[in-house]
Amino acid sequence: MYIPTYDDVLAAHQRIRPYIHRTPVLTSSYINGLAGAELHFKCENFQKAGAFKARGASNAVFGLTDAQAARGVATHSSGNHGLCLSYAAGRRGIPCTVVMPRTAPQAKKDAVRGYGGVVVECEPSTSSREAVFAEVVARTGAEFVHPYNDPRVIAGQATSSRELNEQVPGLDAVIAPIGGGGMVSGTCLTLSTVAPKVRIYAAEPEQADDACRSFKAGHIIADDAPETVADGLKVPLKELTWHFVQKYVTDILTVSEDEIIEAMKLIWKRMKIVMEPSSAVPLAAILKNPGVFAGQKVGVIITGGNVDLDKLPWM
Amino acid sequence: MYIPTYDDVLAAHQRIRPYIHRTPVLTSSYINGLAGAELHFKCENFQKAGAFKARGASNAVFGLTDAQAARGVATHSSGNHGLCLSYAAGRRGIPCTVVMPRTAPQAKKDAVRGYGGVVVECEPSTSSREAVFAEVVARTGAEFVHPYNDPRVIAGQATSSRELNEQVPGLDAVIAPIGGGGMVSGTCLTLSTVAPKVRIYAAEPEQADDACRSFKAGHIIADDAPETVADGLKVPLKELTWHFVQKYVTDILTVSEDEIIEAMKLIWKRMKIVMEPSSAVPLAAILKNPGVFAGQKVGVIITGGNVDLDKLPWM
Repeated sequence: MYIPTYDDVLAAHQRIRPYIHRTPVLTSSYINGLAGAELHFKCENFQKAGAFKARGASNAVFGLTDAQAARGVATHSSGNHGLCLSYAAGRRGIPCTVVMPRTAPQAKKDAVRGYGGVVVECEPSTSSREAVFAEVVARTGAEFVHPYNDPRVIAGQATSSRELNEQVPGLDAVIAPIGGGGMVSGTCLTLSTVAPKVRIYAAEPEQADDACRSFKAGHIIADDAPETVADGLKVPLKELTWHFVQKYVTDILTVSEDEIIEAMKLIWKRMKIVMEPSSAVPLAAILKNPGVFAGQKVGVIITGGNVDLDKLPWM
Repeated sequence: MYIPTYDDVLAAHQRIRPYIHRTPVLTSSYINGLAGAELHFKCENFQKAGAFKARGASNAVFGLTDAQAARGVATHSSGNHGLCLSYAAGRRGIPCTVVMPRTAPQAKKDAVRGYGGVVVECEPSTSSREAVFAEVVARTGAEFVHPYNDPRVIAGQATSSRELNEQVPGLDAVIAPIGGGGMVSGTCLTLSTVAPKVRIYAAEPEQADDACRSFKAGHIIADDAPETVADGLKVPLKELTWHFVQKYVTDILTVSEDEIIEAMKLIWKRMKIVMEPSSAVPLAAILKNPGVFAGQKVGVIITGGNVDLDKLPWM
């Protein structure tokens, strides 16, 4: 298992710069008042393709040799990674195949196609997904880009906290949502090198708290299909992300579904930005644990903004 | 009738700078592709109190003498002006009374109170509003700050296009929504001085097209309570705003309710920002009139972001 280093982050940032946004950091004096802390929101909802995953996907795609690139890339994802890999492949002008359950929302399939990717449908089961994906790779020779358990992807995600650390010097802590752990691992990779005193927190839905239980148990625990409104956070840790989480994370804080929805609505209402339920989990955790962050300067990662406007969680 | 000058705009900008945001300008390559033009969105939805009206209200409030200020300010508004006047008065620490129909949404009344203003309710009729407002002014001696037919307010709103012109040099045109005409008048005031070649367009709902009909007729036409989803645009032009509109506006373009809602959803989905139906009217007009803006560099004013998340127009 290759563990990416900070040199990989620097190379990634150089490589992907033409294809990503340096996203802004926003603040809200009203929300600071509620939290009793100084919060700096790193807005990856404004990222290309609407999510931080454009960073890791672009790093993987633009790091391929021409021979590899000619065969294209492939992944399985019904979320932002599929969309972002399709975006990055489109920018390089190479084929991209995304295996998605036939039950995935039409809007997500359309979005992948909108960036030029090909959607191959499978049944909504692990066995079908694996069989269909193996067939795609055998047929095309495409390079598999895992959504998070991939050093190229983690080095790409790590560029977000590199920017944040430049934009807001002197942070006491950073908090990001945790699903598979790609963003948290990237944050650990960057901050353990450039700002090792900054505490790193992960935030997770109570209803999908496998990372929190893994953290306490000292080994990876994977749940079978948890249900949460924060649909980007249902996947389990893998070896590479577990390496970073167990080594560098201070704590994993969990929140209820109602707390997630309330924090999401608060951000929409007060900050006037559209972001996903997953991205509201860190603010929910801050508001639930005022003692942990009181009076501190905290970076909060807003991971993405791809939400179905016709099915908002408070409708 | 005192017509504000560009010197008033410069004085206003100096006066209000500590109390307002220099709002960002955002772009979307996807929307540019749809429009066939280069659009620069001036995001007043990120303004203090969520609307450009914080500029004009702050200029009026902070321009008062101490003796005037001690008696406070008052207005009648069930929209952003009431909220923004309350915000500005709160920053100066002076009383603010807002006369609102008792039928106005509870959330709007709460928002005025949240900034420290006092809500006085009237019946939902012009006669009741005028009687109640007269009583408030007689009792308090408060300074009346009209939502738009006031040179202090127009000079304040004009600071937005001053920033836009600095942020995006070389614009071919600017388009803003028109209701009472405060933002459009401020835009005319600034651009006719600093960038007189920039064409100025106003955009209006078909269902509240009194400004368009006034423009064609050559005199003010006021409608009785038009109904549109763009609830900030129901009010008529007055003498001062008519002065600027008839003198400097190139054209007024109208759009249907469906076109407004579609443009609003497009901005939310692609730009990941929360903004009001009124603010979507200019983009709807651009998409409806591609020939007018083809290949041009266009400033688009997003006027505000105060929307009821529980009653979005596509719900």
